Amino acid sequence: MKLLEERIRRDGILAEGNVLKVDCFLNHMMDMRLLGEMGREFKRLFADRPVNKILTIEASGIGIACMTAQCFDVPLLFAKKARSLNISGDVYSTEVRSYTYGQTYKITVSKRFIGPKDHVLIIDDFLANGCALQGLIDLVTAAGATVEGIGICIEKGFQPGGKTIREKGYRLESLAIVDSMNIETGEIVFREQ
Amino acid sequence: MKLLEERIRRDGILAEGNVLKVDCFLNHMMDMRLLGEMGREFKRLFADRPVNKILTIEASGIGIACMTAQCFDVPLLFAKKARSLNISGDVYSTEVRSYTYGQTYKITVSKRFIGPKDHVLIIDDFLANGCALQGLIDLVTAAGATVEGIGICIEKGFQPGGKTIREKGYRLESLAIVDSMNIETGEIVFREQ
Repeated sequence: MKLLEERIRRDGILAEGNVLKVDCFLNHMMDMRLLGEMGREFKRLFADRPVNKILTIEASGIGIACMTAQCFDVPLLFAKKARSLNISGDVYSTEVRSYTYGQTYKITVSKRFIGPKDHVLIIDDFLANGCALQGLIDLVTAAGATVEGIGICIEKGFQPGGKTIREKGYRLESLAIVDSMNIETGEIVFREQ
Repeated sequence: MKLLEERIRRDGILAEGNVLKVDCFLNHMMDMRLLGEMGREFKRLFADRPVNKILTIEASGIGIACMTAQCFDVPLLFAKKARSLNISGDVYSTEVRSYTYGQTYKITVSKRFIGPKDHVLIIDDFLANGCALQGLIDLVTAAGATVEGIGICIEKGFQPGGKTIREKGYRLESLAIVDSMNIETGEIVFREQ
């Protein structure tokens, strides 16, 4: 998606450790016009799929997932990280390893909100190693629901998550795939799609 | 807002400890049509204010804040809870006491995204004791920005947060104010507005 690639080139900040910061428009401050365009693009890409629910994970995925859910006119469900006492009753849960924060955490969704009749489009802002994404897939699978597709805003193509998930047969669409970044020159190379 | 009150009556679940669960449409699964209507209502209520930024706190405030930011056509900034290593540079931060989780946590926003020129509408899903809301006000004040107003989806009128904030002179609009709940009969009394 050219609009997103241009925005990453203009406003993204490269930092040590293969970090690409896009906190000025995607995951701290959010440009709602851009997120709206991205939601419409996910709708276009998955228009052939019978999606009845969007699933994401708190917190930074919620913005783009909202915009996408609005385009599909379906509810949004977000997986919670484990501290939440306010979730009632039974939950599906799984463990996720976070490279960013160097720890393992549990993610949960209430069993009341996902089941065998659901056709789920998973949406998230970033894909790198794919641990959070695999966790979300595990939750959908545990519920007996169907993963209709996966929509990612920015995939780091030089990390293994995207390749691993595609090899498992999931339809994964990333709006921008960064194949390499050079912190010294500031150059960002996007994959042709 | 009648639409929200009716939805709370229909789908809200009362639980021990003055808990009102609305996780089936507001803060775990989100009904995007309802959130869209609520965003439009906030726009109507604060139409006279020169809002150029929406501020909320992760995670459950992000959905309604997104919808509101879209109606105002302004960016959304969400305060992060303290674990986030990925925020670069200087941040404004403050401590928040959570009654729900029985602990104190730090919330932060990047100094890059809020400053003296900003006119901020604070949006959140719930107001009870007002600790999180006071934390957000503190962040806006620390940045030298102006709090133009505060929009809350559901205020628990029998807890002190709303009264305290209004007495400080802030313009606080809650789409539904629950004045009492009876867990045995299931009755919910809303304040006339």
